Formats: sequence, structure tokens, C-alpha cells
Amino acid sequence: MNVTVRGRTQHFRTVTFDRTQNAVRLIEQRLLPHEFKIVATPNFRATAAAITDMIVRGAGAIGATAAYGLAQGALAFHGNDLKKFSAHVENVYQVLKAARPTAVDPVNAMNDVRAAMRTGATVAEQQSLALAAAEEFAREDVQHCEEIGRHGAKLIRNGMKILTHCNAGWLAFVDIGTATAPMYAAQGQGKQFHVFCDETRPRSQGATLTAWELAQQKISHQIIADNAAGHLMQRGEIDMVIVGSDRTLGRTGEVANKIGTYTKAVLAARHKIPFYVAIPLSTIDWNLKRGFDIPIEERHEHEVLGAWGLTGKQMADGRWQMGKRTYNRVANPTSGARNPGFDVTPAELITGIITPVGIFKPQELWQRRSELGFGG
Amino acid sequence: MNVTVRGRTQHFRTVTFDRTQNAVRLIEQRLLPHEFKIVATPNFRATAAAITDMIVRGAGAIGATAAYGLAQGALAFHGNDLKKFSAHVENVYQVLKAARPTAVDPVNAMNDVRAAMRTGATVAEQQSLALAAAEEFAREDVQHCEEIGRHGAKLIRNGMKILTHCNAGWLAFVDIGTATAPMYAAQGQGKQFHVFCDETRPRSQGATLTAWELAQQKISHQIIADNAAGHLMQRGEIDMVIVGSDRTLGRTGEVANKIGTYTKAVLAARHKIPFYVAIPLSTIDWNLKRGFDIPIEERHEHEVLGAWGLTGKQMADGRWQMGKRTYNRVANPTSGARNPGFDVTPAELITGIITPVGIFKPQELWQRRSELGFGG
Repeated sequence: MNVTVRGRTQHFRTVTFDRTQNAVRLIEQRLLPHEFKIVATPNFRATAAAITDMIVRGAGAIGATAAYGLAQGALAFHGNDLKKFSAHVENVYQVLKAARPTAVDPVNAMNDVRAAMRTGATVAEQQSLALAAAEEFAREDVQHCEEIGRHGAKLIRNGMKILTHCNAGWLAFVDIGTATAPMYAAQGQGKQFHVFCDETRPRSQGATLTAWELAQQKISHQIIADNAAGHLMQRGEIDMVIVGSDRTLGRTGEVANKIGTYTKAVLAARHKIPFYVAIPLSTIDWNLKRGFDIPIEERHEHEVLGAWGLTGKQMADGRWQMGKRTYNRVANPTSGARNPGFDVTPAELITGIITPVGIFKPQELWQRRSELGFGG
Repeated sequence: MNVTVRGRTQHFRTVTFDRTQNAVRLIEQRLLPHEFKIVATPNFRATAAAITDMIVRGAGAIGATAAYGLAQGALAFHGNDLKKFSAHVENVYQVLKAARPTAVDPVNAMNDVRAAMRTGATVAEQQSLALAAAEEFAREDVQHCEEIGRHGAKLIRNGMKILTHCNAGWLAFVDIGTATAPMYAAQGQGKQFHVFCDETRPRSQGATLTAWELAQQKISHQIIADNAAGHLMQRGEIDMVIVGSDRTLGRTGEVANKIGTYTKAVLAARHKIPFYVAIPLSTIDWNLKRGFDIPIEERHEHEVLGAWGLTGKQMADGRWQMGKRTYNRVANPTSGARNPGFDVTPAELITGIITPVGIFKPQELWQRRSELGFGG
């Protein structure tokens, strides 16, 4: 999507590959929204570290990063010995897989790349096939998000006020995003609408990443405290909710997503406000039988007890001068915190699941699984 | 309640009066939870400034502060001229009234003091009556909170997990508090329970003030992000909710309280978890006919866009070293925010209103108004 740096607007993707340098180029997301910077990882170990260190985050984005990282590692091999090459690639695969052990996208993406490589007879052929497969993974990621946008944009009418939670935007994918895709597509169709971004404590991805995306894209928006959405719904100020999903159960239509998503779904149902979840097909889990069994990561309490940001100082003229990025301890220092990272929203609270192949009722995912690419 | 300073535990009240110095003694709440300090205001103008500058906040606490401030101003008068004295007292009253123009408690408290003064025939008598009336106001505030505790403690069973939102604790009153009163009373009865404190963004009173109170009182508790309560309720980890109220409509049972209260009530109703509101009788509004007409203060967007806290630095050994108190800008710098300060919870979502005279269904407040001290 568009990013304006020092007055100049350019198109960027979250993850790209630099063939001449054999490097993966990534937006350094830990610096956002306060600084925009592209970093290049010079080798597959640096690419794995970028995943581990959260330079890049988001399902599609880390999938593409791992796919490119595998190709990068394969391309760095010198020689013609296929056996040695295979052992080297296996090592690259394991290093990248270990970069974010609980994520499924890097593994799925790398399995695609390895399957493509197997059709090559020589090291050079396999290297070339690896890069082509990684490029194909990234291209498809973008295409799926575009298709989510095409289907989802039909739901957005002029003058609507839309709530979103956390960041399921282009920064979480190679481009365009999922929850944001209908917004970007509707904007392209000339529609006018307003977005409320939930702050999304404790990591504040709504206030930082989603708000940054929407500001860059010049979409009308405001940040709200996670506490405020209920009040705004009660006063008729929210017409629709669109969120992303970390895992969607194909058998039940339950959606696991960032902590607080369930609360917004409960509020939306009470106020009869449509609640949509936008997902790529890769996040559908066709195996798990009930949402209660989705493991909920308990994250570090420091996230709840404080906040990261730029130290600010209000000047005599009322304007704010920003200093360096620091952690502020907000909470009582002798108290601890609980910090579940995700929650599970039942199908009954979800109006529709926006996928690249159309909008589905959550309860009909299983019945219509062949349309959704599941053979079972 | 108890506060432990440098290993020594002492009993403190939020507001007290120092007769020998003719000063109001206040806990400097802006420094909490990071520093505990008592300040003494040497004259009524300093007392008014302490209300304006939020050294003291909370309905009962600012009521008692204004009552003491009026007595303090009256006591500072030298001479026997009743006419000059009355003009002086009127001036003191106006200065204290203007300290927090939208609050009703200071005005009600000062009207009590002035009514008592009228029975005195001399300046000295009226001065003495003013202080006695202010002391009586503070004593009654404590007694009402004790009675809320006595009624509310019956709801707390051993092993319960209780959610609270914002701070309706002893720091908001002269002592004991409202939402916290049942907890302190139950603790006194030897009951074991655990409290989840909603962080309560954007001003984080749950993470700062309520967590500090519970830690000082050695009550088992944890801070949670406002986003987490829905998930914990879904997993059966919350048995009851107790919150305070800024205004309760006697005619409808609707409750205006800190933004996010409504959301917790909606979640509690879905999970059939009892939702209680603890209030002193002074917060019942017997006039207003519908909650929709309660004006909702829109506060400054800086509250949503950042957070106040101590600059923290993680040491090599993993421990955190805290620096000075600063504002951290968390959000994207080119985005704005909406910041409604309060919301309104309908009666249908409230299990009971805990008052000093017993627990009432919200719908029966009007019918039983004579028990609640309303003559109409």
C-alpha cells in the first residue's frame, strides 16, 4: 500500500525479495508508527531472527518471509552436489521453522516451496524453483487479500462507521490485509466511511499499526479505548464490525483472534450490528472439533502493567515534543497481571466470514468445505 | 485503610482535618501508585486548588474536602462582625464551588455545613459549628461505606473471583469506598477471594488506584486488560462483578459510570454472572427520566493516545528500574481519538444496587424511594 515518507508517496509491500543482493526486504514493524524503515536480511539466519524478533509479524507476512528465507538459504548454496544441497536446505528449513514455533504459516509456506523444488533435477534448477515458489506464495497472498476486499467492499455503504480491532491490515500480510481489505477496496470505489480503531491493549496494535495504515491511506478514522465501543454502539455510532482471525474452526465456525474480539462480538450481537471476520483460507483449521480446545497463549504481564511509546513533553504552546521510545510502567508496582493473548468467538455471534472465495455463514463452512479448498 | 510506608503499616483516611494547623490533609493521589505522600493545604484557596488539580478526586472525597475547606475558611476569619463573617464565608463557598464546577458532592456537602452554621449566634459559635458539620459529613461518608460493606459482604463467598472496573475504592471516599467496601468487609470476616482489576483505559484507575488499594490491604488480585474480562468470563473465571457509580437514576435504575462499565454488564448478563453496583445514597438522581439524557463528557484525546507512568528500563538481571513519571505517546502521531468518559448501563443488566440501607433491584429504587431517603 501507499506510504508517504518525507512528503513522497511510494508503494510498499510488507515483504519483498531482492534478487541481486539475495536478501529479504522487510518493513521494520517494531519502529512503527513512529518511524518507517526498510531492513534487508543478508542471509537466512538473519531472516529467521527477523521473524523471532518481531521485525515482521502477522500470518501472511511471516509465511512469505519464511518462504523467501528458504529460497534465500537455497540460493546461497555453492556447488552441484544435490545430496549436500538437500542437507543444507533441510537445515535452513529447521532454522526458519524454529523462528516462531507456534505459527503454522511459515511451515505451510515452506512446505509449498519444498514441494516445488522436488520437481527440479539439478541444484540450479531447484534454486530457481524455490525462488519462483516463494514469489508465487507472496503473489497468492496478495491476490487472496484482493479477493477478500472485492467481496467485503460490497458490505460497505457510503457514510458507514466501521469498528475494527487489533491489526489485520496489510502489515500483517504481504499487502492489503484481511480486515482492512474491504476498506481499501471500498475507498478505491470512491465510498466515504469512517473507521474506529480499538486501541487493542495490551499491545495497542490498533492504536499503532491499524491507525498508521489508515492515516497513510487517508481513510477517515479515530482511535478509541477498548472500553468505548459499547457506548458508541449504544448511541448508534457503529454500523459494522470487521476483524481478522488467527484461527477459524472449519467444523464449528468459531473464531480465535486477538483478546477483546469476543467482547466486541457480544456487544455487536446485543445491538444487532453486523459482525464480520475476514480471513485467508490458510487460517481455517479443519481438524479441531471445538474452540474451547484452542490453546490460549498467556503472555508476559509487563504488557498489561505498562505501555511502549515515545516519551512526550507538552510545550508552553500546547504542542507535544516526542523523545525516544521507552516503556512506561503504568500499574501499581506491587501488583501482577493476567494476560491472555487471544479469545474465541462462537459462530452464533458472527454475521459472516469474508474469504477470498466469497462470504460464508460461519455455520456453513464445513458443509461448503469443497468451495473453501478442503478436500475432506 | 491501611497503608504500609517503608515497612510501617498505618491507618490513613483520604481526607482529614488538622485543627492545630487549620489545614486539610489529603493523600496526593496524582503520585499514586508510585509514591505515597500526604499534603496539607494551608488555606481554603489551596484546598480549592487541590480539588481542581485532582490531588483529591472521587465523589465522597471531594465532598468532604469541600466541607472541610469551608470550615477552614470560616475558622481563618478574625473578629466578631457577623455580617463581615457571612460575606467572607460566602466568598469561601464560591471559591470552593468553582473548584470542580460539574460535581454535585462539594455543593451538597457545603450546603450541609452552611445549614449547621445558621444555628450559631456568634462568629465563634458558627466557626465551631462549621467544623463540627464538616466532621459529621466525613463521619457519615465513612459510615455509609461501612454499611455498604456490611450488606455487600454477604454476596462474597469463599473462593470467589470478583471483577471490578475503575476505582470506587477508599481513595474516592473518605475511607473504605463503595465497590471495594464489600471486599474489605469480607476480608475482615476471614473470607478468601480473588479480585480482577480492569486496567480501565484510558486513565488506568484500575491498574493504578484500585490495584494499589488491594495490594496495600493484602487482598489477592491481578490487573487485566479491559479486553480480557470477556474471555475470563467465558472460561468460568469470574463469579461476580462489583462496580461503583457516578450517577444512578432513581426513576429507571440506570447507572452512569466510568466508560467500559456497560460493556462489562453486557458480558456478565451473557454469562449469567451477577453484576452489582455499590453506591452511596447521594449519587441517586431522583429527577432525570432517562439515562440517554445524562451528558457524557468527551475528554481530551491525549488520554487515549498515550499513557502516564514511570519510565522503565529492564536491567541485565531481568528486573526493572523505574525512572521519573512521564507521558508516553503510544498511538500513531497523525491519528486522533474519541474519548467518551462515561457510559450508561440499563437496569435490566444490573443484578442489584448495594446501598447503605440494603441491596435493591434497580427497577425498585423509585417504588422504595422512601427507604432510600427521598421524600418525593
